[in-house]
Amino acid sequence: MEIPVVRNILEANDRIAEQLKALFTQHKILVLNLISSPGAGKTSLLERTLTDLKDEFTMAVIEGDCMTDNDARRVAATGAQAVQINTEGGCHLDSSMVLSALSSITLDGLDILFVENVGNLVCPVEFDVGEDAKIALLSVTEGDDKPEKYPLLFAESQVMLLNKVDLLPYVDFDVDVALRHAGRINKDIEMFQVSCRSGEGLDIWYDWLRKERSAKAQA
Amino acid sequence: MEIPVVRNILEANDRIAEQLKALFTQHKILVLNLISSPGAGKTSLLERTLTDLKDEFTMAVIEGDCMTDNDARRVAATGAQAVQINTEGGCHLDSSMVLSALSSITLDGLDILFVENVGNLVCPVEFDVGEDAKIALLSVTEGDDKPEKYPLLFAESQVMLLNKVDLLPYVDFDVDVALRHAGRINKDIEMFQVSCRSGEGLDIWYDWLRKERSAKAQA
Repeated sequence: MEIPVVRNILEANDRIAEQLKALFTQHKILVLNLISSPGAGKTSLLERTLTDLKDEFTMAVIEGDCMTDNDARRVAATGAQAVQINTEGGCHLDSSMVLSALSSITLDGLDILFVENVGNLVCPVEFDVGEDAKIALLSVTEGDDKPEKYPLLFAESQVMLLNKVDLLPYVDFDVDVALRHAGRINKDIEMFQVSCRSGEGLDIWYDWLRKERSAKAQA
Repeated sequence: MEIPVVRNILEANDRIAEQLKALFTQHKILVLNLISSPGAGKTSLLERTLTDLKDEFTMAVIEGDCMTDNDARRVAATGAQAVQINTEGGCHLDSSMVLSALSSITLDGLDILFVENVGNLVCPVEFDVGEDAKIALLSVTEGDDKPEKYPLLFAESQVMLLNKVDLLPYVDFDVDVALRHAGRINKDIEMFQVSCRSGEGLDIWYDWLRKERSAKAQA
């Protein structure tokens, strides 16, 4: 008789992530894992997206934070289903946390599930939570060297949203440098310049969501 | 015969950190562990500090990053000794990395050693690298909710530098909220408002460095 051995924490994570993927595919739910530094604008992006597309899609959010339920309250104010996971010091979400959170979400009829990860450019990238795509947010206040310094996130993401472009006049950030480095790390990454504060550029992000959601529904 | 057992990774880290502390005390070197989100301004703070205080103190920097030696080159340009540690995906520095880096630094006559940690508000806080104090940097572009959402860093830090105050007119950041939350988490934390771009407020930081360095020299 073979005894199954869970080799390590990442293998255990991937096993549950596979179960999640099967569940999401069965329900035809597009699942996106949002990863960025603290304060790059993940929650603001969700507030905008949940509001602007509320008549098109049924959407839900799993919020990850070390502490507080601030973000879940912010996104719930848009009318979307929202669940908060507090990692209590943990630096990333993993698939078992997402699995637990699903008990508080109605999957029937759900079109898009956003997972807002803990603010961290490093650790969340290694933990698959059953998503269709990772979405990297980079804000222009963080510096144009971040794709080069934290390459794994940009290598693994399908989309990079360059946020806070309304602040470009006030900071030393070379957009070309950031885009060039991200494109060198990942030649397939799609890059959109947005401001979640002014709304600038969000239409392209919404078009991307429509396209991906449609593909998932037909899969 | 008792067999020494290293219980876990944090215990192993603390053991080397104690050796580092003894070494730093013997050489009367003030050691500061700088922790922040990516792009909050740790390297800019060092560039300013190393330049403005170069006639007062002999200073060195250990730079931690996932990839690149960009930051070590930036601080070396000020004339200070600089060593880069690439964690290659690792999310924090630990005491063994700092111990290794010391072989490239002249400790004799050194007054202040800065350790610039990997940009991350979570993981670096747990790993003592033999420092006298942790210094938290928070930039106003990250949002005033960060002390509340990432409390451990602010609980463990002796100083919080609120950076990029030159951008306050362009962002939604309530300084009172951020300071109140940080002060509630840690009633002893000293909080300085600075702009590493304009130089505003840095005098108070320099006075704090002088006071701490003087205390260490007399210890």
